[in-house]
Amino acid sequence: MGLFSKKWNPEGKHAYVTGGSTGLGLSLAQLLVKRGAHVSIVARNEKRLAAALESLEALRVNPSQNIKAYSHSLDTAAASEKALDEVCQLYDGVAPDIVFNCAGASRPGFFVEMSEQDLTNGMKDGYWVQAWTAWAAAKKMAKQRRKGAKIVFVASTLAYMSFVGWASYSPAKHALRGLADTLRSEMLLYGVDVHIHFPNTMFTPGFEEENKTKPDIVRKIEEGDDGTLPGPAAEILLNGVQNGHPHIVGDLITALFSASTRGSAPRRNWLLEGLYDFVAYIAVPVWRSGVDKQVTEHGEVHYEYLAGKGFFA
Amino acid sequence: MGLFSKKWNPEGKHAYVTGGSTGLGLSLAQLLVKRGAHVSIVARNEKRLAAALESLEALRVNPSQNIKAYSHSLDTAAASEKALDEVCQLYDGVAPDIVFNCAGASRPGFFVEMSEQDLTNGMKDGYWVQAWTAWAAAKKMAKQRRKGAKIVFVASTLAYMSFVGWASYSPAKHALRGLADTLRSEMLLYGVDVHIHFPNTMFTPGFEEENKTKPDIVRKIEEGDDGTLPGPAAEILLNGVQNGHPHIVGDLITALFSASTRGSAPRRNWLLEGLYDFVAYIAVPVWRSGVDKQVTEHGEVHYEYLAGKGFFA
Repeated sequence: MGLFSKKWNPEGKHAYVTGGSTGLGLSLAQLLVKRGAHVSIVARNEKRLAAALESLEALRVNPSQNIKAYSHSLDTAAASEKALDEVCQLYDGVAPDIVFNCAGASRPGFFVEMSEQDLTNGMKDGYWVQAWTAWAAAKKMAKQRRKGAKIVFVASTLAYMSFVGWASYSPAKHALRGLADTLRSEMLLYGVDVHIHFPNTMFTPGFEEENKTKPDIVRKIEEGDDGTLPGPAAEILLNGVQNGHPHIVGDLITALFSASTRGSAPRRNWLLEGLYDFVAYIAVPVWRSGVDKQVTEHGEVHYEYLAGKGFFA
Repeated sequence: MGLFSKKWNPEGKHAYVTGGSTGLGLSLAQLLVKRGAHVSIVARNEKRLAAALESLEALRVNPSQNIKAYSHSLDTAAASEKALDEVCQLYDGVAPDIVFNCAGASRPGFFVEMSEQDLTNGMKDGYWVQAWTAWAAAKKMAKQRRKGAKIVFVASTLAYMSFVGWASYSPAKHALRGLADTLRSEMLLYGVDVHIHFPNTMFTPGFEEENKTKPDIVRKIEEGDDGTLPGPAAEILLNGVQNGHPHIVGDLITALFSASTRGSAPRRNWLLEGLYDFVAYIAVPVWRSGVDKQVTEHGEVHYEYLAGKGFFA
């Protein structure tokens, strides 16, 4: 995006939002409706979808806006393709102008206590549920030569770094970042833009769910993360897309990790990120050695905890 | 590892090497045998295993060394656990001193042409084949309180960055890096060390395999990567483990990406990596904008290629 180019405007565009019935997806869908977009939300739970649709209708700014809700699972390639096809019917099969992948879930815990299914579900809920929709959308956009269309992923600060407790989630979010960086390059072939958002802790129903399995040591390490509400996070996400940022970051901690975990991603702000990179160069090792000490010292308590659960039996 | 601590020494240790019948895994197994380790290699192909075992026997430095080869698939959690259990029988069920995850494969191509199976196989061959062995090993090491034991992953430069062609592989390798960073923190609870190696292009049978599906544009972009032979790469890997480096890097290009894609990983060399980070700050955007231009300009040729394959039909 050039220096004087106009910001991308959602008005009159068709936005497809997965995970649109709750949390960040719902807040984003509401924001898009307020900005005059046609919005299709997809999620599984029909009751939540109906409530979400009602909240979206109440925000309508224009009688011609299409505001729709669809119940689909997005766990498999076939289901994700079917969902996208069905949603596009209203648009004569034309791919959405923008696809927001907001679906996902996390379930922290200790690696040695995770079951095979905990690990495969972590990859499904953190990666595939977004990758399959991106795959279906990328194919449709390429076939229809939809230059200017956009695919947006939602990752996490844990796509840039990780620590104890996130062995089923952080790999999935790292994978999503790898996919986004690959596709940002590959979709240049079709003129399709790819963005990825890295929110920090967000106070959503999903966060309450993840807290149920979160080990105390993980909770303690995360005390420094202030967290965001889904409304402001949705603003950050949409702003980032409108400004053409491939990596979208809202809070300072994530910005430090983003600047120092750049990979091949383009920068948003050359000077500011140079400064962040420098700060991270000093601050991250200090933070990490503190956390390492905390984890190491927790070892004996942890062995007792495992023994109590019959791990050594 | 402290400043004056002794280097880790493979002599007399039991090293478990997956993917040990070919490429990096075989070179590593040979190196370990030469250094006096007990070596168990695991791979699928029995013929290749037999040849590998013969080459290992020829390098034996000590009549008491256990040098063994086992044929197992490592695609699933159960198979990986079974393989590890079988190998440990000779050691009264005691977990290996070190587990090297060298198994893996890649298959480049265009995202929109990949099948569902191409994508799930990419994750299986790039991530799960190592994650399941790590999971089995971590449980065994934690149960046996094997302080000082080590788990080693093998990723790729493409775990730090990515570009067109690697949509099935780079996400898997990013995931592996996320897992390694998580476990480096989490395994502090048990005093188990976690390392991950990021080799650049390596001239192995796997490389010849991946070249069969590699699009021309990907080949062109990679022209600058000189590549390494598996022998020197194995030396780099073992050296990194001996020096206690969580992230192990051998070539300059990967070192630049490593320094500028640090996440929460500890550094090897404070000053040198600061310099690399600075160089990457300038050099990577220059490289990337060149590649972006190359990909964008390839768009029309690519559309013709897709049309020729009936993509738009």
